[in-house]
Parts: sequence; C-alpha cells; structure tokens
Amino acid sequence: MGSLIGRHFRVMTFGESHGPALGVVIDGLPAGLALGLEDLRRDLERRRPGQSPYATARKESDEPEILSGLTEGGLTNGAPLAVLIRNRDARSGDYAAISRIFRPGHADWTYFKKYGLTPQPGGGRSSGRETVARVAAGAVARALLKPLGVTARAASLALGPVRAIKRDWDFAESNPLRFLDPDLYDQAEAAVAGAKKDGDSIGSAVELSARGLPVGWGDPVFDKLEAKLGRAFFSIGAVRAVEFGEGLALSAMLGSEANDPMGPEGPLSDRHGGVLGGISTGRELTARLFAKPTPSIAIDGDSVDLEGQPVKVATGGRHDPCLSPRLAPVAEAMCLIVLADFCLAGPAKWPPA
Amino acid sequence: MGSLIGRHFRVMTFGESHGPALGVVIDGLPAGLALGLEDLRRDLERRRPGQSPYATARKESDEPEILSGLTEGGLTNGAPLAVLIRNRDARSGDYAAISRIFRPGHADWTYFKKYGLTPQPGGGRSSGRETVARVAAGAVARALLKPLGVTARAASLALGPVRAIKRDWDFAESNPLRFLDPDLYDQAEAAVAGAKKDGDSIGSAVELSARGLPVGWGDPVFDKLEAKLGRAFFSIGAVRAVEFGEGLALSAMLGSEANDPMGPEGPLSDRHGGVLGGISTGRELTARLFAKPTPSIAIDGDSVDLEGQPVKVATGGRHDPCLSPRLAPVAEAMCLIVLADFCLAGPAKWPPA
Amino acid sequence: MGSLIGRHFRVMTFGESHGPALGVVIDGLPAGLALGLEDLRRDLERRRPGQSPYATARKESDEPEILSGLTEGGLTNGAPLAVLIRNRDARSGDYAAISRIFRPGHADWTYFKKYGLTPQPGGGRSSGRETVARVAAGAVARALLKPLGVTARAASLALGPVRAIKRDWDFAESNPLRFLDPDLYDQAEAAVAGAKKDGDSIGSAVELSARGLPVGWGDPVFDKLEAKLGRAFFSIGAVRAVEFGEGLALSAMLGSEANDPMGPEGPLSDRHGGVLGGISTGRELTARLFAKPTPSIAIDGDSVDLEGQPVKVATGGRHDPCLSPRLAPVAEAMCLIVLADFCLAGPAKWPPA
Amino acid sequence: MGSLIGRHFRVMTFGESHGPALGVVIDGLPAGLALGLEDLRRDLERRRPGQSPYATARKESDEPEILSGLTEGGLTNGAPLAVLIRNRDARSGDYAAISRIFRPGHADWTYFKKYGLTPQPGGGRSSGRETVARVAAGAVARALLKPLGVTARAASLALGPVRAIKRDWDFAESNPLRFLDPDLYDQAEAAVAGAKKDGDSIGSAVELSARGLPVGWGDPVFDKLEAKLGRAFFSIGAVRAVEFGEGLALSAMLGSEANDPMGPEGPLSDRHGGVLGGISTGRELTARLFAKPTPSIAIDGDSVDLEGQPVKVATGGRHDPCLSPRLAPVAEAMCLIVLADFCLAGPAKWPPA
Repeated sequence: MGSLIGRHFRVMTFGESHGPALGVVIDGLPAGLALGLEDLRRDLERRRPGQSPYATARKESDEPEILSGLTEGGLTNGAPLAVLIRNRDARSGDYAAISRIFRPGHADWTYFKKYGLTPQPGGGRSSGRETVARVAAGAVARALLKPLGVTARAASLALGPVRAIKRDWDFAESNPLRFLDPDLYDQAEAAVAGAKKDGDSIGSAVELSARGLPVGWGDPVFDKLEAKLGRAFFSIGAVRAVEFGEGLALSAMLGSEANDPMGPEGPLSDRHGGVLGGISTGRELTARLFAKPTPSIAIDGDSVDLEGQPVKVATGGRHDPCLSPRLAPVAEAMCLIVLADFCLAGPAKWPPA
Repeated sequence: MGSLIGRHFRVMTFGESHGPALGVVIDGLPAGLALGLEDLRRDLERRRPGQSPYATARKESDEPEILSGLTEGGLTNGAPLAVLIRNRDARSGDYAAISRIFRPGHADWTYFKKYGLTPQPGGGRSSGRETVARVAAGAVARALLKPLGVTARAASLALGPVRAIKRDWDFAESNPLRFLDPDLYDQAEAAVAGAKKDGDSIGSAVELSARGLPVGWGDPVFDKLEAKLGRAFFSIGAVRAVEFGEGLALSAMLGSEANDPMGPEGPLSDRHGGVLGGISTGRELTARLFAKPTPSIAIDGDSVDLEGQPVKVATGGRHDPCLSPRLAPVAEAMCLIVLADFCLAGPAKWPPA
Repeated sequence: MGSLIGRHFRVMTFGESHGPALGVVIDGLPAGLALGLEDLRRDLERRRPGQSPYATARKESDEPEILSGLTEGGLTNGAPLAVLIRNRDARSGDYAAISRIFRPGHADWTYFKKYGLTPQPGGGRSSGRETVARVAAGAVARALLKPLGVTARAASLALGPVRAIKRDWDFAESNPLRFLDPDLYDQAEAAVAGAKKDGDSIGSAVELSARGLPVGWGDPVFDKLEAKLGRAFFSIGAVRAVEFGEGLALSAMLGSEANDPMGPEGPLSDRHGGVLGGISTGRELTARLFAKPTPSIAIDGDSVDLEGQPVKVATGGRHDPCLSPRLAPVAEAMCLIVLADFCLAGPAKWPPA
Repeated sequence: MGSLIGRHFRVMTFGESHGPALGVVIDGLPAGLALGLEDLRRDLERRRPGQSPYATARKESDEPEILSGLTEGGLTNGAPLAVLIRNRDARSGDYAAISRIFRPGHADWTYFKKYGLTPQPGGGRSSGRETVARVAAGAVARALLKPLGVTARAASLALGPVRAIKRDWDFAESNPLRFLDPDLYDQAEAAVAGAKKDGDSIGSAVELSARGLPVGWGDPVFDKLEAKLGRAFFSIGAVRAVEFGEGLALSAMLGSEANDPMGPEGPLSDRHGGVLGGISTGRELTARLFAKPTPSIAIDGDSVDLEGQPVKVATGGRHDPCLSPRLAPVAEAMCLIVLADFCLAGPAKWPPA
C-alpha cells in the first residue's frame, strides 16, 4: 500500500479511520531545526473536523504526540520524527448497518476486490481521516521551509458552480467555507447549504499558492516540479483534476499569448505558474485542484451487497457536504511535502560551492 | 536529474536533442516475453517527426537498436532491456544564433540558473525529442500488457478552441492532426493552419483511454492510480492540466449526480474514469491532458541575453505548430509505463494463491 | 537518516534510546495474514534486556502496541502496520556525566560532526536499543513467511576466542549466552565472565541459518540475495565482518574443491550457503556475522571532551559484556526482513501463471 | 532484475556476456564536471581481459562511447550520462556444447528455475563481463570525487593460501596478479600457476582502501557506510565474505583493545576502518573482500543436463584462474559508486550554511 512519499524528505503515514491511531514517520530531516507541538497543532487545527456547520460533526481533538526525532532542547536531531494522533471519536456503530454494502463513489468495492476484505468501519485506510497524518507531515515541512522564506496557502476557489473571481486570502481564513471571494460568498454558501439541506453534497475546488521558492527546484524529465506535485495532489482522495498556472486555459491560447516574456530576473509574467521546464522560476507557484462531491450522502443510491444483491443505500455517519474547506490544508500539506523534498536535494553544480 | 520512473518496471531514459543518441534502459522485465524491433518501430513511427505539414520538419528515422535483454530467440531474458536511438538530423547550426538568449516559454533560463550552463542546442535534455525514449519504453510496456488484454490509445481532443464532441478513434488515426471528431475537423485544421501561417503556435488537448484493466491496480494513499498517472502525465513538458473521468466537471456536480451506481460487477457508469479509491475498477480508464502552445514560434518575443540585456527573439529551428498529434503517443507511452508498473506488483492478498 | 529498508516490504523505524518510544511502520504487507501481539512478543522477548547476567540490566518490558494495519478480526488489512514500544527505564542521569565527552568506539563524535549535536543520552538513535524496532519488524516478516515454510534462527557462534565446533540449536536456546556448542560452553562462559569481571567487554560472532526458501529469491547484479543481506547485516551497529556459506574459507580453496556438484534438484552440497548467482538454491542459507566487543566498558579510555581537551572516560550505564546473545535475534530479524521483501516481489516469468 | 544502485548517484547497468553491448546510465550527476573518454579508459583498461597469462584470453578492446550527458565542451550537463561498450569477441560457439548443462558453481540452474531460460552463452547477465559497466560507472564516480580529494584503490591481498603481509601498492600495480607483497609474490604466483596448470582455479582476496573522505558520510541505521558498501561488495559475483577495519579479528578482542582512542581530530588509530556508527571518521576506509575460486574449470565436475540426467562437465571457454586481479578494479568501482552517492546527499544540518 503506497504509504510512502518523498526521496529526501521521506514520509510514511499509517492509520485507519476507526483504528487506534494515525500517524506519520518522517525520515531525512536534517538536524538543528526548532520544532514543537505548536507547529503541528496550528496546521492540524485548520484541518480538524467538527468546527463548522459545513464539516463533519465527528469530534476529534487531533492532539499530536511527538515520539522521536527531537533533542531535549526541541531541535530535530537528524533521526526520524514520528508523530502519533489517537482516534477519539470513532463511532463504528454508525457503520455497522452498511458493512455488508458497497457504498457508491467509495473505495469499498475496489478494496474488497483487491484485498479480499469486507468494508471496514469508516472506510478504514481509504477514509479522508487518513489526511490528518499528511497535515502533520506538512506542518513539519512548513517549519523546515520557513527559514528559507518559502510559504504555501490554499483556499476554496469554487463551491459547486460558484467560482471565485476575487482572491481575498484574509477573507478566506475568516469564513467557514474558506471561500476566496467575499462578493460571491453568499452565493457559494447557498450552494453548499442547499446541498446539505437535501442530504446531498457538492463538488468544489481549491486554489493553492506557494511563494518564496528559489529558482531551481524541480528536476527535468520525470521529476519535474509539476510531476511531483501532480502525484501529490492526485493522491488526495477526491481530486479529479489539477492544473498549474493558467492551466487548461493555455490549451486554447496561441503561443504568442502564452509565452511569458523574460527579463533579467526571470519571467516577467506568470502564465506558467512558477515553473518552466519542470523547474521553479522563483515566481509564485499556483495550482488548482478540483474535487468531486463527497460521495457520502443521505440520499439513496443504487448499489449491491456482498452477495451481489441490489440494495438502496444512503450513507449514515458524519460527513462534510463539500470538501474544499478541509481539502485546502491537505493541499497545502502535500505541496509543502513536495517542496521540502526538493529543498533537501543535493548539489546541481559541481564541485559544490 | 529525474530520469527514472517506476518501482517494478523501472525506466531510465537518457539523451539530448542534439547529442549522439537517446535511449532507455528498462529494469524489471520478467523473462519469456516475445519482443522485437517491430514492437518498438510501430510506436516510434507514430511519434516520429517530419510526417505531416503540422509537425516539425526535422527528419529522423528513429530506428531503434536493442542492446540487451533478449535471448537469441527474441524473448526477454529477465535482464535490463536497453534501446538506443541515434540522432541523425540534429542541425545545431539552427541554434547557434540563439545560444546566448533565453527563449521565452522554454527551460533555457531555469536550466541556466540551476545547472550554470548556457542554452544547449535544441534545448538539450529539455527538448521534446527526449520523449522518443519514453515512447520506446511505452512500446515495451504495451507488449508486456498485451497478454493481459490491456490497451491504451490517445488522440487530439482539442486544437486551440476547437474541442471534439464525437470520439471517432479510427478517424483520429487517419488524419494528420489525430483529431477525434470528423465533423469538426475542418474547423480544427483551420485553427492550426492559421497559427502556422502566422508563425505562431496553438494549444491543444489529448484524450487518453485505457481498456482491459483488471480490478485492483493502484495502491491507496500516495500511489493511487491517478497519482502515478498524474505524475507521469505532468512529466510531459507542455502539459499544464490533467483530469480523470468527468474530471473538472465533477467539481460543479452534486453528489447524487456524481456517484456511479454499483452493480455486482462494479460501477454501472463511469463518471469516475475507471478508478475508485485510487484502484482500477475494470472499467475504461479515461484522462485528458491539456497542453500549452509550442513555445517555439517565429514571432518576436521579449527576452534577455546571457548578460541580461533585452532582446527580441523569434525561435528558428523546426517545430510543431501544435503538440497534441505528437503528444498523443507520448501520453499513451506514459500511461502504459505506469500500468506496466502495476502489472508487475506483488500479491495484495496472503498467502498468495 | 537511513531508517528505511525494503522495496516491497518497506520498513521504516524510529526512536531513540532515551526518547519517549521506539517503533516501526511497515508498508507493503498484503491483506489477510493473521497477526497478533503474541507474534511480536515472542521475538521481542528474545531480544529484551535485563534477562541474564550477561545482558544489560536495563529493565524494559518492551510491550508492543499495534496502532494500525489490522482488521477487527486480527488480519492484516493491506494498510501499513505500525508498532509502538514505549521506553520505560531510560535513566538519562547515567549519561549526564558523559554528555560532554566523546565515548571511544561510539558514534558520539561522528554524530557530533555530522549533525552538530552534543552526545545524546544513551547514544540517542545510535544506541543498540534502536534494534527493538527491527525485531518487531522481523516478527511481522516471520509471520508473513510462515505460511511459505520459511524460517530463520541465529545463535552465538563465537564468544571472544572460543568458537563453537558443534551446532546444537536447542542447547543454544537454553543457555544465557545462546552459545551453540555444549562442549565448549564452559570455556565460552569463562571468556565472557572474565571480561565482565574486569569491567571489560569481548567480541563475538553469530551464526544464522534460514531454511525453507524456495528456489529463485534474489535478483542478479545489485540485488543479489547476499547483497541485500549484506547490507542488512552490516547495518547492525557492531558487525564488522559477514560471510555466506563457507565464506572466507572459500578464498583459500581450489575451484575443484569449492564447486558444489549439481543434481536434478539443485546443488548436492552447500558450500555456497544457499545462494548461486545471487539467487536462492532452496538449500539452507547460512551466514556468519562477526561483532566487535561492546564499546561501553568500565575501563578508562582516552578521549576528548567537546572542547577537544583530553579526558579519561569509562562508560557508565548498563551494557552487555558481549553482543552475540542479543545480536542473534536482531540478525534473525534482518534476515527475515530481507526474505519478506523477496517473497513479495512480482513475477519473474511472463505471462504470469 | 536488480540492475539499479544508488539514491543520488543512480546507476543502472545493462548487457550480457554475449549480447551486442554492455553499458550504464548514471542519473543524478551534477553539472559542470569535466569528464572525458580518458577518464573511462583508464579504469576500463585496468579491468580489461586478455592482458596477462592469469586472465581470460578473451580479447575485448572495451572502448567506451559516451552517448549523452556532456556539453560540447566536455562538461557534465546535469543530464544522465550513458556509456556504451560493445562486445567484440563473444565466441558463443565455445558455449554451444554446454548450453544444455548446468555448470556447477554457476548461476545456470538458479536462472533456469527463476526465469525459465536455458543457460545463455557465457552466462548471459550472470557473467563477470557484466562488471565492465560497473567499472565505467566507477570511473565517473572517481572523476566526481576527485575535486573533493577522495580516492580509492584495491589490490590482491591473498591468492589461495598465500596472504600478503606487506602492503606495497606500487608493486601491486606493477605485477600481473596485482599482489600486494613483493616478498611473497613468488609463492603467490606459484599457487595460481599451479592451479592453472591443472586446469583448476583458486580463491583469492582483495584489499580496498579509500582515502580523503570527509567526516560525516554515511547515515545511521540502514544506510550506514558499511551497509551500503556491504551491499555493493556482495553484489560482486564471487564475493563470499567482507570485512571492514580489523574486521573478523575484532570478534576475538576485548573492548579495551578494540576501542580506538579519540583525539580532537577524531580517532587516533583505525581499528574501526574509517567508520564509526556507520559514519565516516575521515580516516582511511579499509575493507577486505574474499572471493571463491572461479567456478569455470577444465576439470570434470558432476552435474545434470536440462532433462536432469547426470553428466560430467568441464567448462570450456576462457577464464581467469583466480579473480582478485580483475576483482580489484571492480571493488574500487563499487566503493566509488557508493561514496559518490554519499557525496551527493543533501544537508545534514538546518538551515543549510
């Protein structure tokens, strides 16, 4: 099961939705970085469930414990950093009724066919709860990148059909849907509220922005910055489309429109989204992630049970009516994990300075 | 330089646009597979330049040589398979004039900053010519997957603003732009021809379809099928957006619309694009790749030279006015390489049957 | 910090001697394997300190907790298995006196130079305590290999200058030094007891035997069975020499003596130690690991402090006078981890049966 | 087939004994290193067959061709470097007679069982000829390490029962057996000549020494310097034992004898062989590799044919009567490849200087 990511900043996550705990081990951290629980808590808090009417009501404190990797003085010691987050509010009972049914839009059936296991409570490893370990790793990556001046942030770009025109990042942090556009907020909220009232869910999109990258991160051919980020973003459960810079729109442009002119300090505009030839240009890195609606809904859908008999199934449990508000911190985490990996790469010129 | 991809079917490519040769070594091939030059030639021919008014006029025979990995009887022997393709028509002279200028939209500047090297003829490793090695590897993957009944094909979905509505795969193979829709072909060709006449280029998109996958390819969390494919697709130079299944459109849907109903043999529809929970469902795998216009154009753009002085630059050399016709075989290759990797994975259940 | 091993059975360990906990995450386990705390306890118990006059007096229960990777019914679920072992008896006080001194024969100085950190209590990550996580992983590997009939065991082959002639494996399990030869036990014990009485330590060696391997594990060139095992064995702190089969003795033989004759079921003798061309022959796999004496001794040695001033240092704390009795279960673990990795490899012939 | 080694300096080799060519692709080389055919030829020449009465009479020029990775000015360009060496003198005819017989001491039988293939001419991928690609990669590693002042050399330490007492490295380079001890040369040569006259072969050992390493190469736990070197050395076909520093002898010492005293610049003696805690101390790195006799001999041995019928087999073809003279450059290459990998690792302290 592909729970490892990174060549230099190597992240291995573990844990299931309703198991004892989730966590992550990070190998490859250099020594001497000041790191504490506060660094982890800040990011985990942004992802934590139970905080808004538009997020699952599952109550998890998501309090991290650092098991290894720090000196007594709170510096990384070069050894693997392990973080543990115990599950507190795993109501397996909610799932008992559907343990013999393959929920539509979920991984139940593919897991069953691949692993031979009946659906596990809360989706087991396929649950969105798995992302808590990613966010913990992302928080460590954020701390690692901070001395280099590299930052990343993400927010809701679209909620169902309502897509932000303005980008107001402060506003995004202040509203429960993390939506970027104050002018369209009421429309966006109405779309989500409407879906929720109907027991339905709605699709969404996230915009991600990373700043402060030096020129030169990313490797040609298969390890282009977009390739590594593309893998990282598509590894998030609900993401069905990803674009960088002007993205899809570039496919309808002329070359004379699309090329960013060059100045002595690099590209003078940023249609390319911060990457040329797979290598960071030093300009803002921008990406957009498009997510399907939460597959868990209270509306009956057609499915089958373990014996293949047709059933109607509505998914109980506690779920987010749309994903982008909580997807945003996960997208940040995945971006930071990839950037941390590049920041730890060895020299590209020889002999080293 | 990230020239390695794959965990089981491990592909390492090499070669520059104007160097002596390009090639690929594939480690991890099982023994006993019948493989010959014909398998390679068929795919290389589909990518070869110089075949249409809408492709670069560079003349390359792209004749492969197999250096290792086969028995005298033409079966793989379990050892690495190495394929060599010599460059024949590398006119470095075309590039002499621009060797001191950073071409807009190209990797010249980021390579210069990262590696400390002045622009190399034809872009060196960053050239689209690098993809010939990918196509060779993809041809080997295709042969490996054939006994399992797994196939992949790709064609032009959009040429600039003209997007196919119909999917006529036979038609796509018969027209020089590999465009899918016969009804819109004239419009699409006009868009490309217009750009070419102006010395300009135009964006495009590719649709990819893979069939015959068994249920169960792809691993949870970071090695989801889309994650691995996402990396592979975004590793292709010009690709700026990727989507799977209904992709971006899902982000504006309700959950009740988006969920594919389940039957005893799996999903009954295919909005998910052949993957659930990162694992293949056995249905058609579909993806779309959106490419920026070829950055090399005959229209002056603003740039700087090595000393940082402003210059106007039009890119000589021989280039494709739009990328999708030749991107299609590359997209197929990357898809096949990823699928080959999964087909060689070990058992997911224990003890093995 | 290289805390990851394995391509298919991927083991990442964490934890320091005097930190909160040690542990391991294993990614790549197939689903359906019955596994419980008892499997872990059995192996951990064999490595546990405080059990004999010839082992450190540190008291650790080494009680494992499984954090993830199992179904409610106690089967592996295909997800990463995480095991946690808390430190109970970490007396950092013992180390306070020497925290500013580089202990001879230890990693204090190289860690200081590499990571910029003053010596950590108990050696931090460089402590032999780190091996508890390896043994936990080895126990999982043992359970995985059991249905295939593959087993591994190790015992003390030599204690200082006393080298076993007989191999009595039952006897080895019944004496505190795990020594193989009942006839020479008194001599061996006297060597260890003498060193201990003098506050000194003594070198030792371990013999390892694995049985039940199918023909065909191991890959040519860089992933030969001995290559993977060689890395695994030399990753154990004190190991300074490793041999396979007749090992070193083969370097003084003639070819006509060294070649094992072949019969229809493979080699008829086993000078090669179960491997030919890097691939298992199905015969007994044998290896010997030679360990230096425990560097922690109560006899003053010459060293320097953080300021580079000469000091005499005797290492307090609680230490094993010789390593082989507790090295044996670690050697087994490393062997099992490597074998588990091979047992999960994909098909070597195509198409798969 | 495990033909890839290295995390940063990634080496993939290919080629069979009697195929068209052998070669290597190296990914991860930084840009700006001056490298030419002379660098490769020097090392390839030291390994080349046909140069002494004590080496196979196979005539190979082993002339390398560099296919990629260099600028026109002869500097590495950061892209993969590919080296091709064509086979010239592959007399498959020599092997026709034994293509249906499993040669004792060879990989024929294990390859047959694993890959389902009858013995390939010259052993195919299992041939010692495969090491030509390692030596090419080692030559590149040597050039990379040169500006850092890191060097490695190896020579024959033992020929059969005759083991060098003196180490005269200049002498070793001047005699056909590369034997280290001028006083014992006649004895050593007699041992080899005797075996050769009888159509037999004889075991041997190599001593390796690397100098100029900075303090700090090697990573704790599984990527210790000895662990990585151990894998690399045991990946060489005939190697059956490896030791570092005082090696096996340490297992019979007391701790008070074995510990190297520490001074302000590190260890004051070098029983540890240049590594403490898996990390280089800056002192001389020493290792010894013990090789079995060449299994190919002209004396009849017992074996079976493809049908399992007993046969007597003497191995025709052209073979080295003892391996250490040509093993020495291979051991150097493997050491250099591992060291190059560490020299390209990222920062161990944070923030980077």
